[in-house]
Amino acid sequence: MFKICFHCCSTVPVSLSILSDKTLERLTTLGTMSVVKLEEWRQRIRKELDNAVAFWLKYSHDTTHGGFFTCIGRDGKVYDELKYVWLQGRQVWMYCRLYRTMERFRKPEILEAAKAGGAFLRKFARVSSSSSGQWKCAFCLTRDGKALKIQRTIFSECFYIMAMDELSRVTGDKDMQLEAEQMMEQLIYWVRVDSSGLGRPQLPGDVPTNSMAVPMMLLCLVEQLTEGRGQEVAQKYRELASWCVQQILQHIQRDGTAILESVSLEGAELPGCQGRLQNPGHALEAGWFLLQVSAEQEDEELRRTAINKFVELPYQDGWDKEHGGLFYFLDVDGHCPTQLEWNMKLWWPHCEALIAFLMAYSQTKKPELLERFSEVYEYTLNHGSSMCLAACTCASECWMIFWQTRTECSDVNVVMTGLNLICLFTKSNHNNQFLKDNCTPFQIMWDTFLGRITPV
Amino acid sequence: MFKICFHCCSTVPVSLSILSDKTLERLTTLGTMSVVKLEEWRQRIRKELDNAVAFWLKYSHDTTHGGFFTCIGRDGKVYDELKYVWLQGRQVWMYCRLYRTMERFRKPEILEAAKAGGAFLRKFARVSSSSSGQWKCAFCLTRDGKALKIQRTIFSECFYIMAMDELSRVTGDKDMQLEAEQMMEQLIYWVRVDSSGLGRPQLPGDVPTNSMAVPMMLLCLVEQLTEGRGQEVAQKYRELASWCVQQILQHIQRDGTAILESVSLEGAELPGCQGRLQNPGHALEAGWFLLQVSAEQEDEELRRTAINKFVELPYQDGWDKEHGGLFYFLDVDGHCPTQLEWNMKLWWPHCEALIAFLMAYSQTKKPELLERFSEVYEYTLNHGSSMCLAACTCASECWMIFWQTRTECSDVNVVMTGLNLICLFTKSNHNNQFLKDNCTPFQIMWDTFLGRITPV
Repeated sequence: MFKICFHCCSTVPVSLSILSDKTLERLTTLGTMSVVKLEEWRQRIRKELDNAVAFWLKYSHDTTHGGFFTCIGRDGKVYDELKYVWLQGRQVWMYCRLYRTMERFRKPEILEAAKAGGAFLRKFARVSSSSSGQWKCAFCLTRDGKALKIQRTIFSECFYIMAMDELSRVTGDKDMQLEAEQMMEQLIYWVRVDSSGLGRPQLPGDVPTNSMAVPMMLLCLVEQLTEGRGQEVAQKYRELASWCVQQILQHIQRDGTAILESVSLEGAELPGCQGRLQNPGHALEAGWFLLQVSAEQEDEELRRTAINKFVELPYQDGWDKEHGGLFYFLDVDGHCPTQLEWNMKLWWPHCEALIAFLMAYSQTKKPELLERFSEVYEYTLNHGSSMCLAACTCASECWMIFWQTRTECSDVNVVMTGLNLICLFTKSNHNNQFLKDNCTPFQIMWDTFLGRITPV
Repeated sequence: MFKICFHCCSTVPVSLSILSDKTLERLTTLGTMSVVKLEEWRQRIRKELDNAVAFWLKYSHDTTHGGFFTCIGRDGKVYDELKYVWLQGRQVWMYCRLYRTMERFRKPEILEAAKAGGAFLRKFARVSSSSSGQWKCAFCLTRDGKALKIQRTIFSECFYIMAMDELSRVTGDKDMQLEAEQMMEQLIYWVRVDSSGLGRPQLPGDVPTNSMAVPMMLLCLVEQLTEGRGQEVAQKYRELASWCVQQILQHIQRDGTAILESVSLEGAELPGCQGRLQNPGHALEAGWFLLQVSAEQEDEELRRTAINKFVELPYQDGWDKEHGGLFYFLDVDGHCPTQLEWNMKLWWPHCEALIAFLMAYSQTKKPELLERFSEVYEYTLNHGSSMCLAACTCASECWMIFWQTRTECSDVNVVMTGLNLICLFTKSNHNNQFLKDNCTPFQIMWDTFLGRITPV
């Protein structure tokens, strides 16, 4: 299969003015080819998205009890009726985001499905915690909404917040926005003040740690709650965002040579397997969350750190050199991780990598980052059907980059000239406008789509 | 590689008296070959056991804080210091069982290590449950014994009981026996009367189920607590044993064609993924627990059920026809199980299968059961190093059959004559004494040995 190589160019950082005719011709050829590839990728992803949305609209709605089925075979048959709050929240969020930002999905049936899903969540997901009087969200509900399991973590609440906030944006319902913010306050309290409301017994050996997932998800929520809502809301969460960034940066360990999944509250390496654990997909996900912050704050140092430490490093360490693909877990000292599934290739880390590399590329125009995107893309799309599909109860957040402008006019608006992309190779600002107009990465939540279909 | 085939014989059930000379010669040859194989297996397993015991005696003892390290590389280096109560309890049990029943392991250092491990458990494993006033065992302790995690299940307590009971047998300490029985009473209360002491919040969707692991482990504990302790103790647990057997038999579903891991309290199939889940290793383990009961009670019907439904059926369904080995989980309708690790080949199900088939064979003398043992043996010992090693936090109960008489005199006492084994092929009672004298299966807990060494 044809494969672009940007390495030869990136090692020769030259300006266009000093290029020989032959070199210029080569770069122009590469540029043209890459534009062809970019358009090919965009078309493929657009097609996958359309198919997936159609599939889930057709098969996932529980018109009897509300909410969504999330365990569905390729033939559309529901093979399990349990309703995991993570997935319910994500599907509401996704429908709203599709409806709000992409013209071709601005359909009444999508809006109504999102609202129905939101109503199911509001009615059933919150279960009062008897001991603390605080609201906890269930992890799993029966088909008719009875709580079945409560996790002693914050993540069901995270996806509840995402759903409510995004829903408030399409409906204009201020109550939902308020509810999202109130739940957020509770999360912040659990994470930064007192975690006893989560329901874990206080045990002498259970020392609090800084687990990557927590600041990462809080940062994601800050982004959700503040996007386009003006300075006042942004100000409200500014300190929290800074705290999250600092907490994430604490995971850079071993003199900057490794990202570790859990560290002490003081930012030191923890002993044993827990301390040495690496989760390349999480690191890449944190990477693009940091890139969003760096772009908003125009923080060049944070951008460099995000790309070097949270995008390139986890990719180098986490990529299976023999068979391709990103490992699920690794031990930084090369021991066998205790997680049985450590060497499996799941959808979601690959989706995180695609977003991270494309975002890094769009912010820096460094061709080697697009080359990495290309590598991950080839692996993900070619191995997708054989990659392990994440289970209902596991982290199945498969995001997929969607190569699309927000205005939906780009379908016929992709300017396919080599010159437009040469600016990426030579790292000049020449014709940079191309990226702004046509390559704005837009993340679409993909998990309930591609990642949840089992082979039949 | 040479492989015995017993099938040709088992399909021709004839008595020796009517055999032609040629057939008798063939059977004699097969018999001789199988005796050679049996001795070869016994020697190999004996060697593995000796190596493993030496390894763990050398590297696993924490002489500073007490207890045992259980995460140790092949080079003997400890790669994690956490102390999981399941594994602490098993190691105490195993040392005691070795010391008590096998002459060559009756060494002071083994007894002392068992006692020290028991002291560590008694000092640190029990943590009081504040809400109920009942004693719970921690799931995981720090190196110096601080509780780190409590599972809301009964299994840490199970292995605590096994350790205490076996320790009381080698030390004669009646307090330990009493403690084991008191903990057992509490388990029974949690399982049969009120589970709230386990710490799970009562949720409307969380309907109680009959999970195979629970009656199976209770039955195992009854065996442990009553073995050789006379009629009074046996009587005390008789009703419980019957209840466990009935609970286990409820897992025979779909008109006897499948063993399902979880069923309703009424013994009906549960909906969804949970209801369709199969765990071949668990079924095989339950199978040999039932075989022990059937042998003690001389219950021929239970024996048949145990072999047909809990040994042969899970083997047929659970064996990977393409690559060999037992799957970890299956879905009875052929869906992809939600457990990511479903198609991995772990040590412990193979050890359960070895015990189950050998025990079934020793009770029935059916050659096809020894043939199955042979298949599992070949796979397990040949693929052992590449099979997935169970993680600390996962079910890592790798038992291994030990082909050895209890009196330890069998080393030079194996009678290698074809005639002695022909009785197995022809299912006559001719010279049956051979099995009693030389092939008594003796289960040795193997998990902390073979299953806990990671590749370096």
